[in-house]
Formats: sequence, C-alpha cells, structure tokens
Amino acid sequence: MPATIKERLYKGYAQVMEVAGKPLAAEKTRYQRVEIFDTVANGRVMTLDGIVQITTRDESAYAEMLTHLPMLEHGRVERVMIVGGGDLSIADEALKHRGVKEVVLVDIDGRVVELCKKHFTAINAKAQRDRRLKIEIADAFEYLGRRENRARFDLIVADRPDPVGPGKALFGETFYDRVKGALKPGGFATFQTGVPFYQPEELSEALREIGSYFPQSGVYLTVVPTYIGGFMALSWVCKGRGKLGAADGARKARARFARAGLKTDYYNPQIHQAAFALPEWIARLVPKAKKKKARRRG
Amino acid sequence: MPATIKERLYKGYAQVMEVAGKPLAAEKTRYQRVEIFDTVANGRVMTLDGIVQITTRDESAYAEMLTHLPMLEHGRVERVMIVGGGDLSIADEALKHRGVKEVVLVDIDGRVVELCKKHFTAINAKAQRDRRLKIEIADAFEYLGRRENRARFDLIVADRPDPVGPGKALFGETFYDRVKGALKPGGFATFQTGVPFYQPEELSEALREIGSYFPQSGVYLTVVPTYIGGFMALSWVCKGRGKLGAADGARKARARFARAGLKTDYYNPQIHQAAFALPEWIARLVPKAKKKKARRRG
Repeated sequence: MPATIKERLYKGYAQVMEVAGKPLAAEKTRYQRVEIFDTVANGRVMTLDGIVQITTRDESAYAEMLTHLPMLEHGRVERVMIVGGGDLSIADEALKHRGVKEVVLVDIDGRVVELCKKHFTAINAKAQRDRRLKIEIADAFEYLGRRENRARFDLIVADRPDPVGPGKALFGETFYDRVKGALKPGGFATFQTGVPFYQPEELSEALREIGSYFPQSGVYLTVVPTYIGGFMALSWVCKGRGKLGAADGARKARARFARAGLKTDYYNPQIHQAAFALPEWIARLVPKAKKKKARRRG
Repeated sequence: MPATIKERLYKGYAQVMEVAGKPLAAEKTRYQRVEIFDTVANGRVMTLDGIVQITTRDESAYAEMLTHLPMLEHGRVERVMIVGGGDLSIADEALKHRGVKEVVLVDIDGRVVELCKKHFTAINAKAQRDRRLKIEIADAFEYLGRRENRARFDLIVADRPDPVGPGKALFGETFYDRVKGALKPGGFATFQTGVPFYQPEELSEALREIGSYFPQSGVYLTVVPTYIGGFMALSWVCKGRGKLGAADGARKARARFARAGLKTDYYNPQIHQAAFALPEWIARLVPKAKKKKARRRG
C-alpha cells in the first residue's frame, strides 16, 4: 500500500491522493500544520491542517481567474494586495501585467511563505525575483485597517482559506468593510467563496454580506479539480459603479488580453464571459434581496 | 468507522463516500457488479464495478446537458435513442419535451434497469409511467446496426460508461459509423467523452474519430462533482450542416426553452452558451487537424 493523504473537508466525503516519494515538508508552524509532497496524479501539493491549498496541476484555474479577470476589465491596475496567498501563485499572475507597480502579499504565516518559496519554484520563481513584489508577514485583517493603506489598492484578492483556524477573521462583515476602506475608488476585490456543492450556505452568506457593503457585487465560477465538488464560487465587488462580467467589460478585456500577451493555462476571453453563467442550482443560492434592490434602483 | 465506498478510477487518486444505512443492492449481474446505496454527502448512488455512475445529488448536470442542449437547438426532435442509460435519467429529461414521440433506451444489462426502476424513482418515476418510453435490453452497438433503425432518430445520446468492460464497443470508429447510420439527416448525437483532467487522451481521440465521420462536430462542457476531476467533456455531432453552440442556435434555444416550461436544476440558456467556452488547457486537447479542415472549408 503506497503512502496516501486523505483530505476530509466535508462530512461524509474524502479525497485520497497517492504520494510519490518522501514528503518534502511536514511540520507544525505557529499557526497550522503544513505538508508539501509530490503526488502520482496531481503534481506537487501543499496542505494546511490536512486541507489541499494548492496543486501544481490545477492552480491556474484558481489564480488566473482571481487576477486576470478583474485586472483585464479594470484596465489600469497599478497596486494589488493579496490577502493570504503565501504560495505566491496569485502574485505570480498579477505580476504578469506590465502596468502593475506593486503587489503586496500579506500572509500571517511566514514559515508557509518560506516553504513555498523553496518547494513551489515551478509556480513562483519569477515572482520571487520581481522587485515589485512586497511580502508582509502580518495579519491581513489588521493590515487592511492601517491608516497608510486607506484607498491604496486598485485590486484586492482574498486568497483566503476556509473560514476555520487562522482564516476566520477573513470572513464576516468587518473584513469586507476593511477591504472597502483599502480600495481606491473604482477598485475591485475578488474573494474565494467556497465550493457551493458542499458549502452552499457559505456562498449565500458571503453574497448577502458583500451586497450590504458594496454598490456593485456578484459571483463568477471557476473549476479547480482538487478543490473537490466541481465549481468553486469567486465573488467580486467594486468600490464604485464598475460591474464585472457585463458585455462591454468583457469586450474591453478581450482587446486588453490580446495586447497583454499573457500566457495562460485556464483563462481566455471565452472563459471570462462564460464564468458569469450560473447553473440553476447555483443561481438559486444567490440571495433574492439583491435582485429586488437592483430592481428598485433601475 | 462508518462504512464507506472508495472509487479508484484513476491511478494515484480515489474518492471516498460515507454510506448511510445498509446497501440497497449489491450483486453481480451477467455483465458487471452493481451496488446501490445512500450516502451522507451525495444522495443515492449507483456504482458499476466500483465506479460511480449516478448520484441523485448531481445527475442533472449530466442528463440535462446531454439532452436539453441538443434538443432545444434542433427544435423538432421526435425520436430519441439512448445508448445505455439504464438508470433512466436521460430518458426522463428527453420525455419532458412535449414534441417527443418515442424514446428508445437500449441497455445491455436488464438487471441494472430493474434495480434502477426500483431504487431511483426520485429520478425516473415519471419516465416509467410514460408510454413513449421503450426499453430494449440489447447490445446498443448491435441495435444501431439493425436495418429497421436506419435513419430513424433525431437524437442519439451515448450515455456510455468508461471504455472498459461491457462499454468497450461504444468507443471507436465503428461505433460512430453506426450512430451516423441510425441518425436522420440533420439529426444530432451527444456523447459522454470523459473527464479531461484525468483522461486527456480520451477527449483528443474521440474528437479525432468523430471528426472523420461527421461534417460537423465539437465539444462542450458540464460539471458533475462526483465524476471526479472538474469538467466533464461532452461531444456532439450532426449528420448534416447543423452546428451546436453557434450564436443563432443558442438564441433559438433560448426562445424554445422559455416556451417549453422545463424545470431544470442545471441547464439554463446562459449555461447553454457558456458550455462551449473551453479553458485553455482543454482547448489544447482539441485536435488541430480539425481546425485546419474547417479553415479549408471556409
């Protein structure tokens, strides 16, 4: 029987990956247990407290959709903040945009960042050499509230873990309020919002909270095979009147994508637009109150 | 430790579902081992030779996309053949269209059909009572070759299993040739074409074979969480000049969907169009030869 790791994230369900060779890292940091290993089917994998955070085989579906999609619609993103993101995969995508002046990655666990710099060079070698990247080992919730960060960022990407352990403060209304404070007018934020097949209430609740803080918000989808359960919901907000996924924005994004010369594994202009189509069962999880509000406004 | 079933479909990977209560069926038929049980996370599940075939929680993502999508673009489907489909989920969706005169389900394993009629009434009770449904316990490959079935069907849905065991004859060029023979001019066929994240070569090979038999063909996507690996590829062919997924067809489908009054859990007109957008890594699996041929034609 070869070595395996078994992820039990949801009640009554588990995924099992066969490990190839010896683990590359397995230790307890100040905040969590981190393990990094190569697998037979899914490339190099990192787990935190036993939950899959990243695999080299499918990270593009996550990182590209949280960054390129809002950046190409915005068109002039210069300053990006990443909440969490210690594996540097989101930073790597954001730095591919030539107009970006700084990417600030704020992760609470410096040891995770160190281990990822060592073991995930396939993803982050280029980002590590990029002088526009600033890594802050700090509590992102606290960082967002600092006076010097008011209205600083064009894009904030919440590469947050699930709402347990050190990630708990990155959910809830106060967090969204602080994100709003740190965004420039017209800026966007994107959030990991769970896998609705196994966490339907997480999506409904996040959209309800978000909707009460931002004039424009919504949800789009990506598919990350090892974030088990099919679709992953990503949500977006705008501090202003911008609206992701509208025909006009998607058209502009298409032209900008062609000019930017981005090499992608998941994102393309077709997927950009398609990501906003929700299957019926997911559409039903979107709070109705929002629709009513939109109608009153119109 | 509660009872679990562990599916090992791909090398180095497994999914584990916790069983709730006693198994409802567990027996060896003439062709395969069939098991039916309730689970904690995924509803009622049937496995054949240990591989998940259907769960009540996500079957709609599969059955609706293989039927409603081609039927709403075609617009006048009267006769449907289902290759396999012993759980009657595809038949159930096809029969929701009022214009349909007959649905012929051809499954080789009569015992599987019997067990599904008993244990999956949540899905197929209505289909079982519908006199337009004809169930033929026969080899679908042989059935397709019968003289009386020449040019008989407007739609053939290949709800085929993976290319192992009794499903082997439902892959390969002779199979596609017979599908072509049994289609009416202008008719469509749709095929389950695997999960490209774990079976990339299955998609490339099927598209190459299909492309050599049909003037029009292509691929679209659905997401069935328990068909592990994110996206599932569905492919389509037309015996004629019809082309699924074009703007005109999608517009007609939208109007027909509104008139048909279909209740769906996955399909809607937005998803219809979005399903033809392929992430970059899947787009690269589509054989290049096809693109060239299309260009020569244009």
